[in-house]
Amino acid sequence: MFTTLSIDGGICAPDGFFADGISAGLKPDGQRDLAFIHSDTLCSVEALFTENRFQAAPILHFKKEGIDTTDFVLINSKNANAMTGEAGIEDIYEILEHAKSRFGNISNPVMSSTGVIGVRLPKEKIMEGMDSFDLSRKSPDAAAKAIMTTDSYDKQVAFEVVLQSGDSFKIGAMAKGAGMINPALATMLCFITTDAAVPSDEMAPLLRECAETTFNAISVDGDTSTNDTVMLLCNQKSGIYNREAFLFALQKVMHELALKIVADGEGASKCVAFRVTGAANRKEAAAAAKALSNSLLVKTALYGEDPNWGRIASTIGASGVECDPKTLTITFGNVTVYREGEILFDAETEAKAAEVMKKSSFSIHCDLGVADGSFTAYGCDLGYEYVKINADYRT
Amino acid sequence: MFTTLSIDGGICAPDGFFADGISAGLKPDGQRDLAFIHSDTLCSVEALFTENRFQAAPILHFKKEGIDTTDFVLINSKNANAMTGEAGIEDIYEILEHAKSRFGNISNPVMSSTGVIGVRLPKEKIMEGMDSFDLSRKSPDAAAKAIMTTDSYDKQVAFEVVLQSGDSFKIGAMAKGAGMINPALATMLCFITTDAAVPSDEMAPLLRECAETTFNAISVDGDTSTNDTVMLLCNQKSGIYNREAFLFALQKVMHELALKIVADGEGASKCVAFRVTGAANRKEAAAAAKALSNSLLVKTALYGEDPNWGRIASTIGASGVECDPKTLTITFGNVTVYREGEILFDAETEAKAAEVMKKSSFSIHCDLGVADGSFTAYGCDLGYEYVKINADYRT
Repeated sequence: MFTTLSIDGGICAPDGFFADGISAGLKPDGQRDLAFIHSDTLCSVEALFTENRFQAAPILHFKKEGIDTTDFVLINSKNANAMTGEAGIEDIYEILEHAKSRFGNISNPVMSSTGVIGVRLPKEKIMEGMDSFDLSRKSPDAAAKAIMTTDSYDKQVAFEVVLQSGDSFKIGAMAKGAGMINPALATMLCFITTDAAVPSDEMAPLLRECAETTFNAISVDGDTSTNDTVMLLCNQKSGIYNREAFLFALQKVMHELALKIVADGEGASKCVAFRVTGAANRKEAAAAAKALSNSLLVKTALYGEDPNWGRIASTIGASGVECDPKTLTITFGNVTVYREGEILFDAETEAKAAEVMKKSSFSIHCDLGVADGSFTAYGCDLGYEYVKINADYRT
Repeated sequence: MFTTLSIDGGICAPDGFFADGISAGLKPDGQRDLAFIHSDTLCSVEALFTENRFQAAPILHFKKEGIDTTDFVLINSKNANAMTGEAGIEDIYEILEHAKSRFGNISNPVMSSTGVIGVRLPKEKIMEGMDSFDLSRKSPDAAAKAIMTTDSYDKQVAFEVVLQSGDSFKIGAMAKGAGMINPALATMLCFITTDAAVPSDEMAPLLRECAETTFNAISVDGDTSTNDTVMLLCNQKSGIYNREAFLFALQKVMHELALKIVADGEGASKCVAFRVTGAANRKEAAAAAKALSNSLLVKTALYGEDPNWGRIASTIGASGVECDPKTLTITFGNVTVYREGEILFDAETEAKAAEVMKKSSFSIHCDLGVADGSFTAYGCDLGYEYVKINADYRT
């Protein structure tokens, strides 16, 4: 038994974590573009990285160094430092050497980047910007804003978890990501801090378990950007660890941030849960649910608030999973439009389904009627604004 | 040795084929929506159908009847007769019985449909419309217009092929399809007529061979609509068959129609060839090329005429194929922007690449430098018009 309380403070909510975000001149007009996360004691660190074959330089650097502890994470937006080869990794070494000489007391610093692919980092600007960092600041909002690219708002959560014994720990996080995520290959970054005393060998399995139904439910496996990163920093300060409570809290943090990313889809006006049940197994359920959340025709129908269930059916049929029109049932919110071969889509049902689609958040449920595999993927609509943002993004 | 001459007449160009398209009231404002193709002798017929698990009623009917000869094909637009179950198949039987009683001299009639999924056919309108058919008409333009849905123009080709001996045969075709095709699941239909004396057991292998580099190069395998059909009708009237010449002509017909479909992508302004070479094998080359032609971020960058090569690289990296930044080379038209780890993208190169992208048709070439697998996929850009068409299509 434990209680989870939503608290302020984002990544600075857990004891011993500091953060800030400043303008280093990477973004125009003095917007924040360079952030740090600092812990006053050495943290265990674990990260999930993109499965893209062209992993960006910060990821290659992290792996090359075999990082498993750190107390300083530097994050820049506007430039992904991806496809930049050895030179891109060298740039990171130079920048982090500068950080060590500037701040003296930091160990195993790491870097994370997001933005345009294929352009060398403006390292002088970054080093100059870093010089103004004050590692004793707790400005989580500024840090969360500095990592944004096409995000329309910053994304933070924090919880205090109180165990029945009265002991407690805190967990905080910030994320960026505002693309259609997939198939649009938008870059997502997420940084999670905690003062829970998580054993370091449990961090990776916990992250993977929670990612499956959160960040991986808003993105098709493997079809990710060059920079995608979910990083967990544990400084053990609370001395408290209860696996069940921590798993619950981590899942909650990642789920809420995943939904914030979907809801901030570029130009998106709706967040939709695509729930698939009755599939041959969980993997097939996930394949069908993600096919729905990624279909351009489904996304545009959502935008048009058009309960075009034929597109839903066609997408399921094309997803390669075991299914049969005679056992399929499709429901918008609580309005069933097709049940096991029978079309229930008359004028009245259409009006009710269209009503459901006017909401900013609702579910589309497809029961395949094959076995009992289930999965829920999250997606958003695609409107004019998406095209505008992505046609104009780089320039 | 043979000569291929472009001729007029579409599906009516080969001897013995007749066609027309009329308005049966399925589309508003008296637009053509119902077509027939008739041959005055029995034809061998072979068709490639969608791999979607939810094949539409006309396809199920064709397979159920084991059709291998016919002289009458009825085609309607505006309604796909898909997800309509047994009732949808019964509707086809009733409509085709009506055709037999109306025209007397037809054998094994078949039907093909395109349009909205999940609505029963308006069979009375179709039967009433059919009553006005004159099977002696050769109006290929009217037929090609009647099968259009969101197409902005009709798509026809016809060739006469003259062998060195002086013998000749003709081949004609019409197609519809104007979606992004894939991943947008737009429906494509294609009907090909010929008076060549193609042995019936060679028709299926010839169709499959030609589809791989034509219609399947504008669509990812398996991710297709409920109705997709490519139908070949051979009436043998010329008495001439030369496999090499026929394969060449069939390939040319399907290639030209595939490009017309891409160029008519909903709201598309550019037709782009995504050429992948140096892949581990042909299958991997096709996977990478199709990943590019289907990427939303690539499509919107094309629309913005932005030589954002990072998105190209990221898409290749996420496509799951064997690749390495150190061996990858990316070229827009004849402008190489990235070569084997080296970024060649300076202001001058960017300006040149942007110049290439202003064209209505150009190629993007990715050499993976792994082995010698190659494939070319065709795609188009995605602009505001696409969203408008697809948000509003059904209603």
